Amino acid sequence: MNWHLPETDDTPAAVVEQEAAVWRPLTEAARELVDLCVMSDVDDDEVRAARADVEAAVARLRKARRTRTLGEEHLTAGRRRPWGNPVIGLRNPIAPPLTVVSDPTGRAETSFRCGAAYEGPPGLVHGGVVALILDQVLGHSVGAAGRPGMTGTLTLVYRRGTPLGDLRAEAWIDREDGIKTWAKARMIGPDGVTAEAEGVFIMPRAFR
Amino acid sequence: MNWHLPETDDTPAAVVEQEAAVWRPLTEAARELVDLCVMSDVDDDEVRAARADVEAAVARLRKARRTRTLGEEHLTAGRRRPWGNPVIGLRNPIAPPLTVVSDPTGRAETSFRCGAAYEGPPGLVHGGVVALILDQVLGHSVGAAGRPGMTGTLTLVYRRGTPLGDLRAEAWIDREDGIKTWAKARMIGPDGVTAEAEGVFIMPRAFR
Repeated sequence: MNWHLPETDDTPAAVVEQEAAVWRPLTEAARELVDLCVMSDVDDDEVRAARADVEAAVARLRKARRTRTLGEEHLTAGRRRPWGNPVIGLRNPIAPPLTVVSDPTGRAETSFRCGAAYEGPPGLVHGGVVALILDQVLGHSVGAAGRPGMTGTLTLVYRRGTPLGDLRAEAWIDREDGIKTWAKARMIGPDGVTAEAEGVFIMPRAFR
Repeated sequence: MNWHLPETDDTPAAVVEQEAAVWRPLTEAARELVDLCVMSDVDDDEVRAARADVEAAVARLRKARRTRTLGEEHLTAGRRRPWGNPVIGLRNPIAPPLTVVSDPTGRAETSFRCGAAYEGPPGLVHGGVVALILDQVLGHSVGAAGRPGMTGTLTLVYRRGTPLGDLRAEAWIDREDGIKTWAKARMIGPDGVTAEAEGVFIMPRAFR
């Protein structure tokens, strides 16, 4: 299940940009760290020294830890800002991150890069990561079309391996029937479509 | 597409444990950092100082960067050690990580924790993360049953939201037919099953 609601944020743009200017560089450094945890080849002493650096950062950030998640806080504070999202979140180092562009017909697309931290089979993106990304892009599609919903079912067909590196994904609305919306998506690598997805989204009661 | 091959590693156990003892603590610190990027509530100066710490670690680890991924290297070096895997990888901060226990009948199960970095809807695990985890556990099932394969199709049915926190997942073989294996899995939260998955896996030529 996954909600895909339109983004709304009552916070003044300047304040949002100020917050982003503080958190984005930290998150980008953390993304590099994630990549290097799997890709670095330095000697043991250097790894231990890096660990001490990371632990110093952790000790600083741990001084004040929120009790509610970003998702919970943003929901109740009249801000729907997906900064914690594991696919698109500005503050989430797990996210590549994707920037998804969509239009009111429900057409959504994004170009992004998946590095070594997303590897499943050697040299290829993990099939589950492909599912994660396509689910997110499908959600943007139904949200942009004014039919936000929770994923009811998600079906993936893998055509070939998705190579690590530069990728593209796109999604569109296939059909609508009452509270249900069917959307389709595909992942595209340098040699064409690697995987296709279909999602059925159910509009939450509040939006009917 | 996703390979799920049996793990094999010709490296002496003592050497593997020595490597693990160096990389595991770094990766665990990086996992805490990932969590704090979304959960910390410290002031701007502290965020900037933490960023400098992380960048120091990055500068160290970047001194030697491998050209081949861990997956590629482990494949060719006679070691199939999934340390880079984004769900179970000892060296991957994206991974919660899961420890999956399986038996030769293809029964696989795991207990794990999904924190705020895996959030989709407020308070709930991202539906795509549910897919990622179930795909991985399905792969362990077919691998353990001696029918390793690439995911051909993956179907998910979401029954209710999967709450962040302690979770369990299990998978088993449903049926086999020639080079195809059907496996099923489910995600279980404190209130029962939250999502069900079915995967069709195709045995690679080398294993037939």
